Amino acid sequence: MQIDLSERIGSANDEVASRLRERFARAGTFVFNLISAPGSGKTALLEATARCFDEDIRFAAIVGDIETQADAERLRAAGLRAHQIETSGSCHLDAKMIEKALESLPPEGLDLLAIENVGNLVCPVSFDLGEDAKVALVSVPEGPDKPSKYPAAFVKARVFVISKIDLVPHVDCDVDRLARDALAINPDLKIFHLSASTGAGMDEWTAWLRECANGKNGRG
Amino acid sequence: MQIDLSERIGSANDEVASRLRERFARAGTFVFNLISAPGSGKTALLEATARCFDEDIRFAAIVGDIETQADAERLRAAGLRAHQIETSGSCHLDAKMIEKALESLPPEGLDLLAIENVGNLVCPVSFDLGEDAKVALVSVPEGPDKPSKYPAAFVKARVFVISKIDLVPHVDCDVDRLARDALAINPDLKIFHLSASTGAGMDEWTAWLRECANGKNGRG
Repeated sequence: MQIDLSERIGSANDEVASRLRERFARAGTFVFNLISAPGSGKTALLEATARCFDEDIRFAAIVGDIETQADAERLRAAGLRAHQIETSGSCHLDAKMIEKALESLPPEGLDLLAIENVGNLVCPVSFDLGEDAKVALVSVPEGPDKPSKYPAAFVKARVFVISKIDLVPHVDCDVDRLARDALAINPDLKIFHLSASTGAGMDEWTAWLRECANGKNGRG
Repeated sequence: MQIDLSERIGSANDEVASRLRERFARAGTFVFNLISAPGSGKTALLEATARCFDEDIRFAAIVGDIETQADAERLRAAGLRAHQIETSGSCHLDAKMIEKALESLPPEGLDLLAIENVGNLVCPVSFDLGEDAKVALVSVPEGPDKPSKYPAAFVKARVFVISKIDLVPHVDCDVDRLARDALAINPDLKIFHLSASTGAGMDEWTAWLRECANGKNGRG
């Protein structure tokens, strides 16, 4: 009975996600859904990304948190158009929340839209938001065992960002193992090694985003 | 209808949790439920804690993960009796899982039992496991905004562990703000500043655990 119910919730979500996917396709907007634990550096990555783009890539973000408007405020300070969703207790974003957010932040006219999910490496994975790609993110201080312990995120993701690589000298984390274990779960994963604070790896990451955006908006 | 269902699941869990609480009381075992994001250092804290106790405190752990037996193996290597629960997708432990685990690891004869929850700062908070205290844990690299963004964990916890304090010089985290914001949510929180790798703060933490264990087993 629990399975039936979650299947029904899932199929209701999938219907809305399909509508979103069609709208993003018509708008020519590349959408990525950023999934990680709390504190892995999702917002810092988006701030650093915003600073890398000129006006050639029209970039905005929808940010989910259980409470506070803090992340949207941080992103606006970095020059990004940002809309905050406060989930009031819910552990993930769903497609309906995104559809509502698009009333304030329509995708038409955007090349790139980031959806920063609630900090949770488990529950957000199950909810399609109509995105083109899920991006899973693990920071170096979290340790190398996250792919094997939270495999669903890596099965579903197209991209894996290893963040806070500036902390490698200070923590006990075998970054090669982190990448290898993620690839063992999903050999098609594209992997980036990044530090939002030093800027390491940001060129490769933003080049990939630019390619995806231009591929979708027809300028590629 | 969603609320009715979650209320029913909650009350079924609470019934089992009450049975567990009675059993822990009869056994004289102090039980704490460790809740944090993935990679905040729950297992490392238990390893370091096990190394601090002589045979005067009989200490064991039940460890929850979505997949792998890795944490129980780590804890056994540190000399702790440990039982692994693999939740196969579930984002939290519930009281029934603990009741089942006690068939392998009965509390009778133990002074102290740690329950390491699934790495998730959101969902585990709602499930009573019959514990004496919830211990919320945030590591310094996760940043100072976690209490305000994930308040439920701090409302329900009796103790707040700030972990990985050895990383303070290397990351941008105002630890005073982290403690202050947590106390603003719950003024009764007992706060420990710890590093499992350097051992900083471990004396205070283990003294508190010892006091709780001896208070409950009647030797205090």
